[in-house]
Amino acid sequence: MTPSHRSNCPVARTLDLVGDRWTLLVMRDALMFKAKSFAEFEQNPEKIPTSVLADRLKRLVETGFLTKVPYQKKPTRHHYVATEKAKALRPVIQAMKKFGEAELKG
Amino acid sequence: MTPSHRSNCPVARTLDLVGDRWTLLVMRDALMFKAKSFAEFEQNPEKIPTSVLADRLKRLVETGFLTKVPYQKKPTRHHYVATEKAKALRPVIQAMKKFGEAELKG
Repeated sequence: MTPSHRSNCPVARTLDLVGDRWTLLVMRDALMFKAKSFAEFEQNPEKIPTSVLADRLKRLVETGFLTKVPYQKKPTRHHYVATEKAKALRPVIQAMKKFGEAELKG
Repeated sequence: MTPSHRSNCPVARTLDLVGDRWTLLVMRDALMFKAKSFAEFEQNPEKIPTSVLADRLKRLVETGFLTKVPYQKKPTRHHYVATEKAKALRPVIQAMKKFGEAELKG
């Protein structure tokens, strides 16, 4: 999750950005289940703690995977929308889905 | 990394097993760079701490991703070899490699 790249390996660099469980589950919800609002992300079945969700959303905006789109003023509210960069993560999540389905049966 | 599945989502279940940065880097080394001995895993460019490596190898054996194969007696020494189950992780690591190469340039 740190932006410092400790090696030039592209796998390691990807993991530096999104290599923790909750970050990838947040991106799963954004990309696969079209979660947008904080409340929608919070409803995931893995019961992400609120503080962890707030932290991961903030980091994902900072690292350019999500962008905040305002949809209401007074009070200001916004949605979190996956960027083009984030969409390139889809094959990673799909590969995990396939692995999970095939190998973790039962 | 906990074996308890907190949801039925196959992505979440995969992440329960291998969803931390070091675990996936250890599996990268086993699957892509054919690391076998503790010393070989320890040489990775990300400088995995020795205690973390020992913990992750132990867990990966427990969860059936690596198997210990003895190659010497007195003193007993063994290699860590990827199981068939682990080989199914290759597409996940390859998808991360592709993402890293494409999106994290420069």
